[in-house]
Amino acid sequence: MKSVPGSVGTGVSFALRLGQAIFSSSSLFFMSSGAGFYSYTAFCFLVTIMGLVIPWSFTLALIDGYSILTKRPIHHQGILQVVVLGDLVLWILTLAAASSSAGVLDLLIGADDVSFCPPRLCGKYQISAVMAFLSWFLSMASSLSNLCLLSSW
Amino acid sequence: MKSVPGSVGTGVSFALRLGQAIFSSSSLFFMSSGAGFYSYTAFCFLVTIMGLVIPWSFTLALIDGYSILTKRPIHHQGILQVVVLGDLVLWILTLAAASSSAGVLDLLIGADDVSFCPPRLCGKYQISAVMAFLSWFLSMASSLSNLCLLSSW
Repeated sequence: MKSVPGSVGTGVSFALRLGQAIFSSSSLFFMSSGAGFYSYTAFCFLVTIMGLVIPWSFTLALIDGYSILTKRPIHHQGILQVVVLGDLVLWILTLAAASSSAGVLDLLIGADDVSFCPPRLCGKYQISAVMAFLSWFLSMASSLSNLCLLSSW
Repeated sequence: MKSVPGSVGTGVSFALRLGQAIFSSSSLFFMSSGAGFYSYTAFCFLVTIMGLVIPWSFTLALIDGYSILTKRPIHHQGILQVVVLGDLVLWILTLAAASSSAGVLDLLIGADDVSFCPPRLCGKYQISAVMAFLSWFLSMASSLSNLCLLSSW
């Protein structure tokens, strides 16, 4: 079995998971700090998904950190399958949530009647959507690395 | 190299590609038949992506059909890499377009002022979004099959 940078138990994977946790936490923070987000289904969906991505990324960052510190690489096929499946599901959901939020934001900002979205509030929502896209991008790197490792089994 | 059902050059792949072409054409038809879709960025994005998915799926359906009729399986690594890459890019874009359209539709339908989206028009947009999701679902099956075949090389 070849070693794949970014796969579970490596330093690159630890950095990617930390990045995912930070970006998804920022997305959740900026979205929930903008009062009234719960009026929009897309924003509620984003908050829900970010609420799932944060513990997932954080747990996997801990596992990676433990693996690096004890110098015991995780080469268990069952664990890798669960990680790949979880990553894939959350990856799809994150992209769907970030895209729908971006679509709604575009409509809110482009509308003639902007009373529903003052510039300051919309700015927070925009930062939240960007952070969700960044989290999704890092998640793609992790998913592909783990998929490569699994397929080389 | 093992044979994977759904990978390029097989009967299952031909059926999947035809399904993708039909669903994406329906999505494009229902969206463009609803006058005024160009006022919404998410709907324009969906139309653009469906305009890319249709020729891609149709071309691959033709290649699959040719491969089945001549009984010459396509086992060229270069072609498979291009198909996997194209599938992955279009898969991501289709999900993003369908999700953003669904988000915008939810906002339009749920809004108090429904003058921007009469029920008949919104119905067409909804069917278009559903068709795009179905096309994305079939595209996922094709992508995974081809990825499995490529990884078994």
